[in-house]
Amino acid sequence: MPSPRPVLIIGSVAIDRVATPFAQSGDILGGAATYAAIASSYFAPTRLVGIVGSDFPPAFLRRYRKHGIDLAGLQTDPAGKTFYWSGRYREHFAGRDTLEIQLNVFENFTPVLPPSYRNTPFVMLGAIQPSLQNHVIDQLAGARRPFILADTFDLWIHTTRPELDRMLKRIDLFVINEEEALLLTGERNPVLAGRHLRRMGPRIIVIKKGGHGSLLFHADGYFATSAYPVTKFVDPTGAGDSYAGAMIGYLASVNRTDFSALKKAVAYATAVSSLTVESFSVDRLSAAGRKTIDARYRELIKITRF
Amino acid sequence: MPSPRPVLIIGSVAIDRVATPFAQSGDILGGAATYAAIASSYFAPTRLVGIVGSDFPPAFLRRYRKHGIDLAGLQTDPAGKTFYWSGRYREHFAGRDTLEIQLNVFENFTPVLPPSYRNTPFVMLGAIQPSLQNHVIDQLAGARRPFILADTFDLWIHTTRPELDRMLKRIDLFVINEEEALLLTGERNPVLAGRHLRRMGPRIIVIKKGGHGSLLFHADGYFATSAYPVTKFVDPTGAGDSYAGAMIGYLASVNRTDFSALKKAVAYATAVSSLTVESFSVDRLSAAGRKTIDARYRELIKITRF
Repeated sequence: MPSPRPVLIIGSVAIDRVATPFAQSGDILGGAATYAAIASSYFAPTRLVGIVGSDFPPAFLRRYRKHGIDLAGLQTDPAGKTFYWSGRYREHFAGRDTLEIQLNVFENFTPVLPPSYRNTPFVMLGAIQPSLQNHVIDQLAGARRPFILADTFDLWIHTTRPELDRMLKRIDLFVINEEEALLLTGERNPVLAGRHLRRMGPRIIVIKKGGHGSLLFHADGYFATSAYPVTKFVDPTGAGDSYAGAMIGYLASVNRTDFSALKKAVAYATAVSSLTVESFSVDRLSAAGRKTIDARYRELIKITRF
Repeated sequence: MPSPRPVLIIGSVAIDRVATPFAQSGDILGGAATYAAIASSYFAPTRLVGIVGSDFPPAFLRRYRKHGIDLAGLQTDPAGKTFYWSGRYREHFAGRDTLEIQLNVFENFTPVLPPSYRNTPFVMLGAIQPSLQNHVIDQLAGARRPFILADTFDLWIHTTRPELDRMLKRIDLFVINEEEALLLTGERNPVLAGRHLRRMGPRIIVIKKGGHGSLLFHADGYFATSAYPVTKFVDPTGAGDSYAGAMIGYLASVNRTDFSALKKAVAYATAVSSLTVESFSVDRLSAAGRKTIDARYRELIKITRF
């Protein structure tokens, strides 16, 4: 076994308040970087770049520390409050509506990598503005080019397309959900969308279909996996972020990015994100432990083989 | 290799006229029994029970004969016309609307099994009225109880629930699509719906999710498979019927119904139904040949293993 390489995660850190058709959370730890970093931490040493305000609860910081996450890149702005998001999922989880959004300290966030982070070999760019994603890539001036995973969301597809297109040419692995893949490519079918996205820059594409599994597109082939059969579905928030975090973490843990390793990374990401949806916030993900993740990974092999 | 056992298919035979967002068919061969019987014929000797009118084109009969389908159970009513259905798929194939329906000879159809059919060991009941499905089961009075697969659709769930519930207690394998499984069980999740359906009677459940693959529920375990990556998507009509036909045909071909055989049957059904959607009517399915089906089956193994 190679020793795990470090992972750098850049993205939002938030205080969330979530309503589903069945339950209502309090003010909980959220943000793409939170879900991704905790997921990644199960596989590899993980560094976090983000920003919080003076109101960020010490208990939330302890949650990161419990997972050994390096917080040298977590800025605290004592003059402001943490990014706050409140949302409500519709009936049958068919979409969600934002009830309240306060960007707060996140509004003027510029990710700055501490010098000690600049050589990180595995990097995940959460779905922040594409101009900021490019700004991070500019700072990754290590001797060896890192492997970069990026995510995005529909707002950036609609509003900052040129910066997004530029970012796509500078990354290795693009992880995107099905609706956004169709929106970005104009294709009607996720298989065509995945092929189309590879022509836009990233040599590896993962299209996530939520409860219907995910698809991997690579020069060496195509891979499709089913979802883990979740029956206790509580809150989908962060599922995609923890999926991407588990992928980059697993790849760093084996220090490989070939097709075979990528398929295993997709399977681990499937297992990890199935935990995320079983509670509000990172509660289930954080409590589950690596043994539960490995058990779900093995279960995924078992239920998909014939 | 065991020699294939015969299969009996009961269901609608129709003349269809289909519009999709991209193309318009002429008057084409359709009906659940048509798709299912041609799919089954690739695996096992197949017998068809249905009804047509005096207008049924000889070319359509030749299509069945090309596949060696036994037509002793295909009634012809010289006084009437064949069941006619015209429909239009909505944008992105999100549902379909019936433009015209003429039940014609199908309105008073009572499936009668020729004596030579009554010992058929593998039977598929297409989505006809549950009372007729029960009537067929009453006639299956052979020395050995057959293995029975049944399908249904939302109209029967809404209108003839007691007969449907009775039918479910008399069959072995229920093949149903995801929306109908949720409707029938009141569950919000296909995994819970599959378990719930097993408690309603059939010991084996398959839930089809169209382009997202399918799920198998059995006392020995759960199996999930991805869809074959279709890129030339023309018309989904008959995909589910050919899926069920391929399942019953494969099981008859190996004369087994254990969990391992059922998983392989699901994979063959996935391969076969991926051909159906690549043309109007049974054109692609009929032209493909067993070699193409086997190639897609092997491809499905390759793209789902990790």
